[in-house]
Amino acid sequence: MHIDVLTIFPEMIEGVMNASILKKAQEKEKFNYNLVNFRDYSENRHMKVDDYPYGGGAGMVLTPQPLFDAVDAVTSGKQSKPRVILLCPQGEPYTQQKAEELAEEDHLVFICGHYEGYDERIREHLVTDEISIGDYVLTGGELGAMVVIDSIVRLLPDVLGNEASAPEDSFSTGLLEHPHYTRPADFRGMSVPDVLLSGNHAKIAKWRRQESLKRTYERRRDLLDDHNLSDEDRNFLNEIRQKEY
Amino acid sequence: MHIDVLTIFPEMIEGVMNASILKKAQEKEKFNYNLVNFRDYSENRHMKVDDYPYGGGAGMVLTPQPLFDAVDAVTSGKQSKPRVILLCPQGEPYTQQKAEELAEEDHLVFICGHYEGYDERIREHLVTDEISIGDYVLTGGELGAMVVIDSIVRLLPDVLGNEASAPEDSFSTGLLEHPHYTRPADFRGMSVPDVLLSGNHAKIAKWRRQESLKRTYERRRDLLDDHNLSDEDRNFLNEIRQKEY
Repeated sequence: MHIDVLTIFPEMIEGVMNASILKKAQEKEKFNYNLVNFRDYSENRHMKVDDYPYGGGAGMVLTPQPLFDAVDAVTSGKQSKPRVILLCPQGEPYTQQKAEELAEEDHLVFICGHYEGYDERIREHLVTDEISIGDYVLTGGELGAMVVIDSIVRLLPDVLGNEASAPEDSFSTGLLEHPHYTRPADFRGMSVPDVLLSGNHAKIAKWRRQESLKRTYERRRDLLDDHNLSDEDRNFLNEIRQKEY
Repeated sequence: MHIDVLTIFPEMIEGVMNASILKKAQEKEKFNYNLVNFRDYSENRHMKVDDYPYGGGAGMVLTPQPLFDAVDAVTSGKQSKPRVILLCPQGEPYTQQKAEELAEEDHLVFICGHYEGYDERIREHLVTDEISIGDYVLTGGELGAMVVIDSIVRLLPDVLGNEASAPEDSFSTGLLEHPHYTRPADFRGMSVPDVLLSGNHAKIAKWRRQESLKRTYERRRDLLDDHNLSDEDRNFLNEIRQKEY
């Protein structure tokens, strides 16, 4: 996979791209990236990339020319058109499902905005996907782009060291994960549940499933609706509900 | 505001903290931060911070000792207890409202996990807030911590250059933002809506409000419920609905 990141703050990106799993994925040649400072494409004689909004109002707006030309540059000569992804609060709320979809692509282009927003023509005519990583406001699109890149790259084949890890994650199963414990069995008087020390694998599996259901019920009831629950799961959830009354 | 970030990948954080608004906010002395590699607190002779999960299973789990000791170190001698924030998929979904709440604090501690998860005792006895930045899986908590920090710092008084910007953002008004346009009026045959060139401020304000309502209706109907709409807004939304049939 090849990823282009269009940003006026390339120095924000390097540290994240060259640590942990993203670093390993590059070493394994699973993906590579290219940072493009789209200010370099500005035809303005002061290399400006923003201007006042038509109709008045606070804040500056990113002008279309530098971004259209930067996207032209990174896509020229390519056989297939890449997805061009704009990070913005107005975008489609990002989900694990979208991460899985984007992980199938060969080439992704990310546009990171700043200031008050983008000229609408960028949104309408240049980008293929508008993504919002959540219902909060950030100073720019760089963190959103890195979040999306991180979530995608870890799904690429052979990137995660332990292949068994990805499918058990929260959201991959549709439920929040069960609690984890590790040594010591007693830490400052806080102990590990007996069942995990029992060696009884069937009981452990049952406990984990129930904790996962309980946590999802308590914290994110909205996720339960989408999930295929077994009869045993449903009975357990009914027990929890009855205890509440 | 003082922020401590506990991480085993401090090199991921620096680039983001020292660019754009976060850099300016430090120059204006609105906040400062401290990166703590909690591996330095490990009492394990190989400086390990993770171990196998009790009860078996894939992946490694962060052990309690290094994190408890690192939090003790950054909070010792402080008069008030800081909020200790854990980034994890099981956390409370992060919102602009939470950002506004956290922006009132003097001291925040962020814990960035990695591997398969945290020992549950960290969650139960060390942290005050569990936050999820969205329904997707990341390789670690660093990006989540940076997202939360960025969203908070921009809300601190006098951080944003243009004071008028923050309240008009998406989510701050409860609606998605209206489109923006800037020069040129015609770019590659794509033109700016006439109303924005009209100079009629009342018409422009009305157009922007309606575009904001329309966009929210089309993309994020879920946000409309929470918003105090005027009679004029409701009439406009009814018109849109009627056109759909």
